[in-house]
Amino acid sequence: MQTINPPWNRRLRMALIGGGGSAFIGPVHVAAATLDRRADLTATVLSSDPDRSRQSAAAFGIAPDRAYGSVGELIEVESQRDPDSRIDFVTIATPNHTHFEMARAALEAGFHVVCEKPLTTDMHQADQLTALVEQTGLVFAVAYGYSGYPMIRQIRDMVRGGELGTVDAVRVSYIQGGLRRMRPDEMPTRAAWKLDPNQAGPSGVMADIGTHAFHLLRYTTDLQPMEISCHLATYHPVRPMEDYGHAVLRCMEGEMATLTVSQVTHGRLNDIALEIDGSTGSMVWQHEQPERAIVRRHGQPVQVYESNRRAEYLGDAFRASSRLPGGHPEGFFEALANIYRGAFDDMLRRAAGQAAEAAGTTYPCVADGCEGMRFVEACLASCRTNGWWQPY
Amino acid sequence: MQTINPPWNRRLRMALIGGGGSAFIGPVHVAAATLDRRADLTATVLSSDPDRSRQSAAAFGIAPDRAYGSVGELIEVESQRDPDSRIDFVTIATPNHTHFEMARAALEAGFHVVCEKPLTTDMHQADQLTALVEQTGLVFAVAYGYSGYPMIRQIRDMVRGGELGTVDAVRVSYIQGGLRRMRPDEMPTRAAWKLDPNQAGPSGVMADIGTHAFHLLRYTTDLQPMEISCHLATYHPVRPMEDYGHAVLRCMEGEMATLTVSQVTHGRLNDIALEIDGSTGSMVWQHEQPERAIVRRHGQPVQVYESNRRAEYLGDAFRASSRLPGGHPEGFFEALANIYRGAFDDMLRRAAGQAAEAAGTTYPCVADGCEGMRFVEACLASCRTNGWWQPY
Amino acid sequence: MQTINPPWNRRLRMALIGGGGSAFIGPVHVAAATLDRRADLTATVLSSDPDRSRQSAAAFGIAPDRAYGSVGELIEVESQRDPDSRIDFVTIATPNHTHFEMARAALEAGFHVVCEKPLTTDMHQADQLTALVEQTGLVFAVAYGYSGYPMIRQIRDMVRGGELGTVDAVRVSYIQGGLRRMRPDEMPTRAAWKLDPNQAGPSGVMADIGTHAFHLLRYTTDLQPMEISCHLATYHPVRPMEDYGHAVLRCMEGEMATLTVSQVTHGRLNDIALEIDGSTGSMVWQHEQPERAIVRRHGQPVQVYESNRRAEYLGDAFRASSRLPGGHPEGFFEALANIYRGAFDDMLRRAAGQAAEAAGTTYPCVADGCEGMRFVEACLASCRTNGWWQPY
Amino acid sequence: MQTINPPWNRRLRMALIGGGGSAFIGPVHVAAATLDRRADLTATVLSSDPDRSRQSAAAFGIAPDRAYGSVGELIEVESQRDPDSRIDFVTIATPNHTHFEMARAALEAGFHVVCEKPLTTDMHQADQLTALVEQTGLVFAVAYGYSGYPMIRQIRDMVRGGELGTVDAVRVSYIQGGLRRMRPDEMPTRAAWKLDPNQAGPSGVMADIGTHAFHLLRYTTDLQPMEISCHLATYHPVRPMEDYGHAVLRCMEGEMATLTVSQVTHGRLNDIALEIDGSTGSMVWQHEQPERAIVRRHGQPVQVYESNRRAEYLGDAFRASSRLPGGHPEGFFEALANIYRGAFDDMLRRAAGQAAEAAGTTYPCVADGCEGMRFVEACLASCRTNGWWQPY
Repeated sequence: MQTINPPWNRRLRMALIGGGGSAFIGPVHVAAATLDRRADLTATVLSSDPDRSRQSAAAFGIAPDRAYGSVGELIEVESQRDPDSRIDFVTIATPNHTHFEMARAALEAGFHVVCEKPLTTDMHQADQLTALVEQTGLVFAVAYGYSGYPMIRQIRDMVRGGELGTVDAVRVSYIQGGLRRMRPDEMPTRAAWKLDPNQAGPSGVMADIGTHAFHLLRYTTDLQPMEISCHLATYHPVRPMEDYGHAVLRCMEGEMATLTVSQVTHGRLNDIALEIDGSTGSMVWQHEQPERAIVRRHGQPVQVYESNRRAEYLGDAFRASSRLPGGHPEGFFEALANIYRGAFDDMLRRAAGQAAEAAGTTYPCVADGCEGMRFVEACLASCRTNGWWQPY
Repeated sequence: MQTINPPWNRRLRMALIGGGGSAFIGPVHVAAATLDRRADLTATVLSSDPDRSRQSAAAFGIAPDRAYGSVGELIEVESQRDPDSRIDFVTIATPNHTHFEMARAALEAGFHVVCEKPLTTDMHQADQLTALVEQTGLVFAVAYGYSGYPMIRQIRDMVRGGELGTVDAVRVSYIQGGLRRMRPDEMPTRAAWKLDPNQAGPSGVMADIGTHAFHLLRYTTDLQPMEISCHLATYHPVRPMEDYGHAVLRCMEGEMATLTVSQVTHGRLNDIALEIDGSTGSMVWQHEQPERAIVRRHGQPVQVYESNRRAEYLGDAFRASSRLPGGHPEGFFEALANIYRGAFDDMLRRAAGQAAEAAGTTYPCVADGCEGMRFVEACLASCRTNGWWQPY
Repeated sequence: MQTINPPWNRRLRMALIGGGGSAFIGPVHVAAATLDRRADLTATVLSSDPDRSRQSAAAFGIAPDRAYGSVGELIEVESQRDPDSRIDFVTIATPNHTHFEMARAALEAGFHVVCEKPLTTDMHQADQLTALVEQTGLVFAVAYGYSGYPMIRQIRDMVRGGELGTVDAVRVSYIQGGLRRMRPDEMPTRAAWKLDPNQAGPSGVMADIGTHAFHLLRYTTDLQPMEISCHLATYHPVRPMEDYGHAVLRCMEGEMATLTVSQVTHGRLNDIALEIDGSTGSMVWQHEQPERAIVRRHGQPVQVYESNRRAEYLGDAFRASSRLPGGHPEGFFEALANIYRGAFDDMLRRAAGQAAEAAGTTYPCVADGCEGMRFVEACLASCRTNGWWQPY
Repeated sequence: MQTINPPWNRRLRMALIGGGGSAFIGPVHVAAATLDRRADLTATVLSSDPDRSRQSAAAFGIAPDRAYGSVGELIEVESQRDPDSRIDFVTIATPNHTHFEMARAALEAGFHVVCEKPLTTDMHQADQLTALVEQTGLVFAVAYGYSGYPMIRQIRDMVRGGELGTVDAVRVSYIQGGLRRMRPDEMPTRAAWKLDPNQAGPSGVMADIGTHAFHLLRYTTDLQPMEISCHLATYHPVRPMEDYGHAVLRCMEGEMATLTVSQVTHGRLNDIALEIDGSTGSMVWQHEQPERAIVRRHGQPVQVYESNRRAEYLGDAFRASSRLPGGHPEGFFEALANIYRGAFDDMLRRAAGQAAEAAGTTYPCVADGCEGMRFVEACLASCRTNGWWQPY
């Protein structure tokens, strides 16, 4: 008899840290985590202001005794709870500069972690978290949600499985425009921290969305970056950090990858494009139509792969992450839900005494978060040296 | 302090009827109903076979005492439960021929109903349900999920608000290909009933997807069909009912609408297109890109409306049904969740002693289900008279 | 040694009738006819006003002695010229009601004819032209230019060659919006006749663009229409003829075709869509991207055929009508030039004493023009009988 | 009375050099030059083999006395002809390494020149041609055909007219795949020289298509490149020159432009994309749909500009280069014909004793050709220094 979440046969208990008030990211994490009804939201810390944190919990349906005022309180109280009611994992959806301390505290208290990107604000913190994950054996997922799209997983399997031959070149771009018109004082409250280097870290667009683009590049191909040449620019007049960036990556086997990110391209919403050139075929994926991949081979009709669970030409990784029949659009909730699904599977494997084998495959793990930080630091270093190559 | 579901301040309790086993529709309804965490699945009847019905419930995380073997049992037991634990509504996701009896039983027992389309298999049953809804004052939603897309709601408000001037002509098509190759014996078990007139009713494609197309036409415009000329065809060699259909609708003010449906167009997944011609503008929406609407006015650049909660050019109906920032694709789950959201609002209004004002606006109601049956019967009648006009 | 136009080894001499002044159609015909440098413009009758006709000729580079004031004069003088300088064919690009007399006069004088569509304003005239063409053995091409696109010819060969299996259903639409805002007095001079039944004939949109759509349907498939049910509407307040139309066609083997035309859809330029459903595949072509065809087969990736002369998957008919390497857009000039190319080939075959074998294949012939008139008359008759079936 | 080509009132006489045999480029230049019937092909040198050169001329309809065996012969004989029959200009469509000598000879003999790109194989030659053009006052056009698209001219006027505010960043890519599978010995004869550095020059893809991309960037914006960092790669195993390249351009006002070119991306035909980010709007143009431009402004619907001569929102530069009503696709022939049209206008201005004012505006001139060479040389120099900045 099939049940949910064997061996526990119950829903996992989630604590949400951050994402309250007008922030959209909290409800998104909750919806994604609970989409398959394998988890429920059990506890919250919704604000750095303890009173507001407690008051906001009712909107999430959280009882007062699980509506905590701070992460410290959450961890202290939950740690003392009976295993039958204690939370299983925390989701950290707070400004970047708080990720490290919160994640460390959660890991040290024995809770699995799902953490927003970028992992931390510097490499040193990232390395510490990596060590702690290894030491505790806990599951640590990083919310590179775009890697959860079923078609991205199809692409990964095709590319890594050699269906395009040897990969020669990759072009990835992530173009937004939302910040074009905003001065810091016009930013919605929930996003103001993104323009404050003390909260967001030293990098702007490269940390905020460049890490997503870099992860997609790394996730779908096996390119090993060797050195990076990066150019950053700030086009918005009153922006403290870069809002436009471009990096060239030289990889181990001579492959060239280029990565372009912008948050100042008028009217562009969230436009990620990934183009992969291989020796026997090429591929294009665009986030505006996440359920399609375009595959081309010289002299043949262009092939458009469309999400369709019944189509045999799509592989297991696709099917394992698709929830609806072909032609019923799935979107970002489902992509992020696939990250949670992968993390849950590993939490259960751990509960069953097995290895957490899915890390980096069905969910981005602490190592992927570290790579993102390494990429950002190499970009910043290259930019400081007028674009000269920096080792990755 | 904001809470969920005032005045009840608790999640609504859902019973799912049908949709177990390999059917995708059950999990879809549950995910949609619970996406906003305003409801939870409390009880199930997952199969017409009582044993299988009870055994399947664990996969949904349902405790044995709420895993019922039949609708009769569900209604009998739940009716006797304390209001603090009793289900609030049932979702009926069973073959067409069972909708009527199940819905009637649920209404008579005082439960709100969300019912799959087509509402029933004939008009007489539909009229009876309408009377019963009126009599009981209960909420009755019909799962015309496509009308839940935020951009469809934007279109409705624009068109009905006169932004295209007077509507002259509408073209709607719904093109699928999934049944092209299937003989009845090749149909997946879960869908075999769709080719059995005893279970699906006398109409094939027109009832199955034509009712969706017709509802979109009615929902987005205020066209009042007056008479219908319809042509049905069966192109698949061993199909008992029509698999292709076309209807011309003459409307009250001289408007012409055409509606084309197919389930035998190779490789087309679930392609709905809606084109509205008005005296001052025209509009196109396609389900393959549900977050866009294309608006054209003579002599001006084409305008592409894109889902974006922060864009002021999009109206309240859009914003009230969108959950993610622009550029983060939302899909079918969220559309169906919007139907549930509307129905929940009315359930709460009823609980607070108010009128169920959202019926037909934020969720399709029993009257919309009736209209679908009326449309199907007019189509069948016209087809029997060689396409002659039948009153609607 | 390859030459142009054997056995004549010289450019053909064209006379243009109509299309002067602000009309765009004259230069278009000249450019299309001369694109391959197999013809040159030799003589003109550019206006029904003899003086204006003669004066306009200089803009076409025509010497005064070939700048005629009327068709009568053109035919009389050219007929008396030496065969070494006499025109070979006339292109008729005048209002509909003049086609018949001009074409008859040209044929009777022994000149080949290229005639704009619709062929005439009634069936009787069309039949007379057919008889005259048969009698004279001259080449008569009708300017259904859209059938000249290389990809349309690829589609024709695929569909007629059985690559989609048995064709079951076809949907063709031709949607324009240009006339939406115009009152007759606002029409550009060159197009005013289109709103005058005395010049355009009894049908508006159905004759003007419906004949194009019908020809594409007939050209690409071998469907034999048996009876037609048609609905016409006039949405623009001061329009004398219909500006919107819809026809259902029942064909010999039970196939259903639907054809929708509009000239009142705001902002739509010249949007033709052709969808063909076959038993083993389906196909879509859209005029907005004339160099692509989309081919779908159940369970396989969507295939996009792209114009590319080097691609072996495209056939001879494609290659014979494409002039540029893949990725260099070709458009309407080239499509119409392909009609001329086909007609020229037959003119040369006639000069060599051979049969005019390409009629109806590489160029639409008088029979295709007749079919258009038959279609329009059946539509008008059906409309007069409230949409009842009329034999085709 | 309007005539063609005042003050000459006759068609211009063109000599085609190169482009015979299986090469497509010859007929393309002739069709483009003669599309408006302002020129005719009068003389040819179609091959470097004198006999083949003369024999091929008949296929172009050239009489034996104008079918020359070499450029030397062409220039010698034509120079001695009477001005009433002498050629007016030469079009050079030969391999790169011959451009310089042929162009110099033509200029020295007093003929206007239209020359294929890249202008020469090195900067020194390019400078000499520039001096010669200045000295002779003759018209010299470079066949950067893509800048002839009406929508590119619309974009140029909008961008340079400030409709996007200050331009901050530009991304241009030119992606082809045609050479992916070819070894030198598999190249079609007509293209084999492109893989021979002795004929094509030291650069492969950057000279062949990078110069087009660079010209589009320069033509549409007023960015002044200051320094260039470039990375070249050769992914095809037996290719002597680079087949993939990427350049970062730093411009005078801090703008950043990136330029990516490939001839090894499987199945991509001729895909140019131009993205311009300005302070008040952004713009995208793609060669696969050359008649559209996408304009975005924060918070507003996306605007799609579509070719339509009657649309008032499109400006004079658009209208002056469009030949067909909206919705009738125009393509590459017409784009190249617009280059010729601009050059012809200047030839006539020179004949009337006026300045050649259109150079660089309605046709790319020798200075634009020079810029292309300067760009290629900076790219090669940067690549040799491991991507370090080179002054432009």
